[in-house]
Amino acid sequence: MNRNIETFIGCESEYEDSKIVIFGAPFDSTTSFRPGTRFASKVMRSESFGVETYSPYQDKDLEDINVFDGGDLELCFGSPKKALDAIEKFAAEIVKDNKIPCMIGGEHLVTLGTVKAVVKKFPDLHVIHFDAHADLRDDYLGEKLSHATVMHRVWELTGDNKIFQFGIRSGEREEFTWAKDHVITNKFDFTNLNHAIEVLKGKPVYLSIDLDILDPSVFPGTGTPEAGGVTFKELLKAIIDVSKLNIVGCDVNELSPIYDQSGSSTATACKILRELLLAIYK
Amino acid sequence: MNRNIETFIGCESEYEDSKIVIFGAPFDSTTSFRPGTRFASKVMRSESFGVETYSPYQDKDLEDINVFDGGDLELCFGSPKKALDAIEKFAAEIVKDNKIPCMIGGEHLVTLGTVKAVVKKFPDLHVIHFDAHADLRDDYLGEKLSHATVMHRVWELTGDNKIFQFGIRSGEREEFTWAKDHVITNKFDFTNLNHAIEVLKGKPVYLSIDLDILDPSVFPGTGTPEAGGVTFKELLKAIIDVSKLNIVGCDVNELSPIYDQSGSSTATACKILRELLLAIYK
Amino acid sequence: MNRNIETFIGCESEYEDSKIVIFGAPFDSTTSFRPGTRFASKVMRSESFGVETYSPYQDKDLEDINVFDGGDLELCFGSPKKALDAIEKFAAEIVKDNKIPCMIGGEHLVTLGTVKAVVKKFPDLHVIHFDAHADLRDDYLGEKLSHATVMHRVWELTGDNKIFQFGIRSGEREEFTWAKDHVITNKFDFTNLNHAIEVLKGKPVYLSIDLDILDPSVFPGTGTPEAGGVTFKELLKAIIDVSKLNIVGCDVNELSPIYDQSGSSTATACKILRELLLAIYK
Amino acid sequence: MNRNIETFIGCESEYEDSKIVIFGAPFDSTTSFRPGTRFASKVMRSESFGVETYSPYQDKDLEDINVFDGGDLELCFGSPKKALDAIEKFAAEIVKDNKIPCMIGGEHLVTLGTVKAVVKKFPDLHVIHFDAHADLRDDYLGEKLSHATVMHRVWELTGDNKIFQFGIRSGEREEFTWAKDHVITNKFDFTNLNHAIEVLKGKPVYLSIDLDILDPSVFPGTGTPEAGGVTFKELLKAIIDVSKLNIVGCDVNELSPIYDQSGSSTATACKILRELLLAIYK
Amino acid sequence: MNRNIETFIGCESEYEDSKIVIFGAPFDSTTSFRPGTRFASKVMRSESFGVETYSPYQDKDLEDINVFDGGDLELCFGSPKKALDAIEKFAAEIVKDNKIPCMIGGEHLVTLGTVKAVVKKFPDLHVIHFDAHADLRDDYLGEKLSHATVMHRVWELTGDNKIFQFGIRSGEREEFTWAKDHVITNKFDFTNLNHAIEVLKGKPVYLSIDLDILDPSVFPGTGTPEAGGVTFKELLKAIIDVSKLNIVGCDVNELSPIYDQSGSSTATACKILRELLLAIYK
Amino acid sequence: MNRNIETFIGCESEYEDSKIVIFGAPFDSTTSFRPGTRFASKVMRSESFGVETYSPYQDKDLEDINVFDGGDLELCFGSPKKALDAIEKFAAEIVKDNKIPCMIGGEHLVTLGTVKAVVKKFPDLHVIHFDAHADLRDDYLGEKLSHATVMHRVWELTGDNKIFQFGIRSGEREEFTWAKDHVITNKFDFTNLNHAIEVLKGKPVYLSIDLDILDPSVFPGTGTPEAGGVTFKELLKAIIDVSKLNIVGCDVNELSPIYDQSGSSTATACKILRELLLAIYK
Repeated sequence: MNRNIETFIGCESEYEDSKIVIFGAPFDSTTSFRPGTRFASKVMRSESFGVETYSPYQDKDLEDINVFDGGDLELCFGSPKKALDAIEKFAAEIVKDNKIPCMIGGEHLVTLGTVKAVVKKFPDLHVIHFDAHADLRDDYLGEKLSHATVMHRVWELTGDNKIFQFGIRSGEREEFTWAKDHVITNKFDFTNLNHAIEVLKGKPVYLSIDLDILDPSVFPGTGTPEAGGVTFKELLKAIIDVSKLNIVGCDVNELSPIYDQSGSSTATACKILRELLLAIYK
Repeated sequence: MNRNIETFIGCESEYEDSKIVIFGAPFDSTTSFRPGTRFASKVMRSESFGVETYSPYQDKDLEDINVFDGGDLELCFGSPKKALDAIEKFAAEIVKDNKIPCMIGGEHLVTLGTVKAVVKKFPDLHVIHFDAHADLRDDYLGEKLSHATVMHRVWELTGDNKIFQFGIRSGEREEFTWAKDHVITNKFDFTNLNHAIEVLKGKPVYLSIDLDILDPSVFPGTGTPEAGGVTFKELLKAIIDVSKLNIVGCDVNELSPIYDQSGSSTATACKILRELLLAIYK
Repeated sequence: MNRNIETFIGCESEYEDSKIVIFGAPFDSTTSFRPGTRFASKVMRSESFGVETYSPYQDKDLEDINVFDGGDLELCFGSPKKALDAIEKFAAEIVKDNKIPCMIGGEHLVTLGTVKAVVKKFPDLHVIHFDAHADLRDDYLGEKLSHATVMHRVWELTGDNKIFQFGIRSGEREEFTWAKDHVITNKFDFTNLNHAIEVLKGKPVYLSIDLDILDPSVFPGTGTPEAGGVTFKELLKAIIDVSKLNIVGCDVNELSPIYDQSGSSTATACKILRELLLAIYK
Repeated sequence: MNRNIETFIGCESEYEDSKIVIFGAPFDSTTSFRPGTRFASKVMRSESFGVETYSPYQDKDLEDINVFDGGDLELCFGSPKKALDAIEKFAAEIVKDNKIPCMIGGEHLVTLGTVKAVVKKFPDLHVIHFDAHADLRDDYLGEKLSHATVMHRVWELTGDNKIFQFGIRSGEREEFTWAKDHVITNKFDFTNLNHAIEVLKGKPVYLSIDLDILDPSVFPGTGTPEAGGVTFKELLKAIIDVSKLNIVGCDVNELSPIYDQSGSSTATACKILRELLLAIYK
Repeated sequence: MNRNIETFIGCESEYEDSKIVIFGAPFDSTTSFRPGTRFASKVMRSESFGVETYSPYQDKDLEDINVFDGGDLELCFGSPKKALDAIEKFAAEIVKDNKIPCMIGGEHLVTLGTVKAVVKKFPDLHVIHFDAHADLRDDYLGEKLSHATVMHRVWELTGDNKIFQFGIRSGEREEFTWAKDHVITNKFDFTNLNHAIEVLKGKPVYLSIDLDILDPSVFPGTGTPEAGGVTFKELLKAIIDVSKLNIVGCDVNELSPIYDQSGSSTATACKILRELLLAIYK
Repeated sequence: MNRNIETFIGCESEYEDSKIVIFGAPFDSTTSFRPGTRFASKVMRSESFGVETYSPYQDKDLEDINVFDGGDLELCFGSPKKALDAIEKFAAEIVKDNKIPCMIGGEHLVTLGTVKAVVKKFPDLHVIHFDAHADLRDDYLGEKLSHATVMHRVWELTGDNKIFQFGIRSGEREEFTWAKDHVITNKFDFTNLNHAIEVLKGKPVYLSIDLDILDPSVFPGTGTPEAGGVTFKELLKAIIDVSKLNIVGCDVNELSPIYDQSGSSTATACKILRELLLAIYK
């Protein structure tokens, strides 16, 4: 008899055989409003057995591809620096083995850890960022490491005009002003996504999906729901479109199960992850 | 003084005077993921007093038509066979009296009981099936009677090409493959519904509505919410369109009040039932 | 050190400096179905710190305008008459000082108190009414003062064809019949809003927003959710369009936090209020 | 076939055969803090089927006694006067027929309606009052009819030293001061209950049970939970002890199902009602 | 890298090294009232990381003993017979290897599967049964296999006077009558437990703990909460006392996480399991 | 008109007139299990209007004493060091003005900030610590500042045998071992409290109340509920007993409103705070 193994549904391959490695980064210490994203990866694994492995959208099946689920990192609450170091270290190993890291957050700050690992291998890294929030502040109450500053920190790694934001509908005026000179911010929806895909052809791309880009009607289970978001079908199409590019890393974050009483946000997050894995697997 | 009578709002006619008979089938023993649909009919009756009897969509009023509410069957949990027999027996009596049975589930398996009663009277029965899930497996962990197999069982009663599915967006690959030869499966939405209505003109039709065809944003209160569903207005239009046909039986199922913390799914289910009754009443 | 001050985010101006005065009317005694709107203003203030002061939709910021938050009135539960008198008295003071009252309900009946104050100053007052429900009954179980009669009472103050309703999708048949001769009722959505705006140019207008005009997918946290409503973007556009008129008073009501387990309805209500304030401020 | 009848479990006798009549008074318009008791009677009927009819405490069975369930009154929200009149009228009919009215609230104010009916027949009526709150204010924000004043109003009907309170642990200082001259207030628990029973032997007694006398650990589902209450076993014993007296009317109130997410408060309320009915039935 | 392993906290030993084997039996198809116990084992594993491995009550630590966690069985909903067969088969293997099976339910019916396996090896098996409910019906709506009949079925395996019940406070009169001749039923609490322990010295004992023996204040998260139960400390003492006997099998069941919104019932169940494992380990 | 002021009920004095200053420390970044205590102070202020200002236990009234409510500090999530510095600075000002700081947490770590301020003025400070958890680890995953280490950090400020713990029922074995030489740990309940009070007479005492010392039945709304705690009455008596000492600072922490769906934990926390204020005020 073997000890109880629990993976995201259909992601039961061994590490060696896998092209994609999923892992959880259960960290939300800098969340300034409503916490709880730390529970996302665990709950998604548990609830994923309510989702089929087969996608009628892409006519593909998780059972036909090789994905490894490395479980959750043990991250230190209260120390963003240590948490990000642990994430970077784990992601670096995956990258070193020529696999694609696919991280489940956690708050959005965790993206910084994985991007750090990926950008070392792919110095010309570009980032596609789906989100309701700009996340472009330079600091939050004096702190440089925060869910509200993560894309500013990522910009420090990639440089100007490497980050393409979509769906942004919340932020301080200063963020939108700063953005004009440094990142490509597309407000509200996926307008211009096709153009971005044109531009990014052939480049190494990191895809960061903050699930609150979805409308709160579809995805209430998040810390800072922002009315006016995209639909599930729009996000699904955007993911499939982007997956034509050379995706070298990705993440899905900001599900907060505490606020998902009906479970439909979790089910939706699971389905997004399924479609993302099926789309980027080549 | 009379003992407390509780019916779905506006459905207070006597049995003899009624053309439609609603009744609850509180059964969910084969639900493999999240149970709770057993409570739907009771909660819908209770919450229906928050809904008006008048429909501004159809300009009709429940108070102007005769519907009888027979209450809930007492079904044996743990024995799908016995539960289905009890449903069939009850529905057969309604059918015998030339009334239309309109069942409130319960899990989708309960449909089999009523269809069995109806198909005996209408051997050429056709089925219109609104659902997120194909429900076409031949068995589930070896069991033939399951919410996941119900349409396969119905097919055994009706034969090939008698079942018209709409909204299907979840299932195993095998279900979709099997469907090609046996049922008419329309994925994702109501595309082709008009064509189906053309084909079905003059035939006896059973309409089975699994409410999870609705998008989880509209209807989170169900066992297996599937992102990417239809809107309330789309479902409403589809019901009114289908009601032009010769509807000889129908059901509404898969509301799970446990997961409807806000009550909006229940309110929506009540409204769907109101519109369905008003539409099929002639 | 000062005692703890709590206002809606960005509404921290002094009374004298302000053009708009927001205040809460925590009253829901006549709610016939599910109560709880009494908590709306308090919870909105508390949760508003999860919302930015800047609107990317209008490119305006609450920090650049002067709004005073007068807190909540202490209203007597069980006595609609006394509650309305208190509201009218408070609103009258605001109107007297040439400021715009912007009330946060509470059930919809509270609108009557503020309209009474406003119509005394603006006898030619017209009312734009966004709602799922007609609210046009003459009485409710014999009572004249009720959330279900409020627009009938308002009509007694304004006279025929002064009330323009939008989004209405629920009511008794009698309400719709009565409406034809007395108010302009637009069912289901904002069709004809532009025409109404044309007609109302130059007139003093009171804007009453019952948040249940929104679809329950967007706004489940209300007493009587009605499927088939408008989207957030549609409501936002309607508010901005209407704000071109001479708005002399307004309210936002029917958020019931008890039924907003995820908090997304409250967040949406806060955003609607932010956009409303930014739109009508001149 | 008969229309759906729903009664509290085991209370299915005809009116003529019954010695006790239960009915619901779904009213909570004067509740000043958290409303929702209007739903108690309906939810208790619905959930009572999770409770056995047999009591191992008293070795009696509801199936062996005759209790009639008259359903819920339709009361006018927003008008305490009208609501109390309707309750009094209904209770008077029961009293006239020499049956015991057993009302399910609703907020505690509803007690006044039934007491009015009972005291007309039994002018020497005494009242045993189990509660966490004194409910002895003369008015609440100027209103005479309020859940916070109900026992003051009852005192106006019965006169001094006819009301025996137990479990009281919350109130204004003035209430406790006033009480000293007019009612017998026993704080915190059932100390002195035996003495009261001695005193009350042979008198007509009305028993009013505000379920918030129970500790919130046992009974969280109420509008104003007050730590430091009695246990279920203590309340059960007190009810059985009191039932030796000549109980001519009673009520059970202040369950607010909205705040009973686990359902255990409702289950406890059902059990209290079962034990009360079994105890007072002679 | 290894695939994600998830066990109950501190139960990470290999099968060969372990004296106790825990496993989940996620089945609740016959639950007649409120379902959901199927999720207990999964949620307990997940939430157990909020519990320490060390017990200050027993001064023992799970890290010092060898327990294997075999995960959850995959059981067929809708077929009690098949589910019980699968449980029996799995438990039989554990028993064969001279280990103690410790099952996490699921509804109480699952006990029958493990008892069947254990009684084959220990024909003189005695059963200590902690519960609020007698579970002694011969059938439930005609079905022999039900959560309400499980102890009647167990009695068929053990014979008269082998089952010692404690805490029983709910059942039909017939169950209590039948019990007098066949099982030793102690109502309400643990009175007489010491006597039972005397009697059972040296015998093989199966301990079945239905967690609803706890008062709903301590343990609201269960399908049928019954007021008047024992405290945590009383249950803890009873477990430690009983563990002096020769425990050859045990189970903990009837946690229903759906009804445990605060999580405190789950935390309590985890602690009961920890203390049970530490107590019976020798 | 004045801007909206919101204080804990009955705590409306000006700073200068007050002997006690309450303030909120909304911080929970190091919480390792379930977060949410950041919302406690805000929710307690809001819900306190459901609590009376008068205590029948002490026959005292908040309206008769002078307490100032300074509102909530704005603390930086993700930086325990900065948060503690801000707390210390604020508390130091209160201490300097010869007032008693009474902090509302937040996670238990916030105690360290206030103790730092207090111990500077009272070098012989002793600490009475009510809690379920020992909180005595030296570090948590390498971090020195954590809710799990706070009493170890406090010990570094006070020295050996200055901390008196009561109610402790959870921790690692190492914590209990270490405690023997450094602090006075009383397990499970308030046994020996009287002795401690004897010893502490005349000394400056800081009282830190982690509300999870209460049994989860009374207080489910906390991050890590631990079965087997004290009752409300026991805690109330302990507070009143301790208040005879020279209390120079105190705090109440670990309410997590997210997990208090019924609101009864919040109501209990408010009542504890009321009784604490009334008890220590001299």
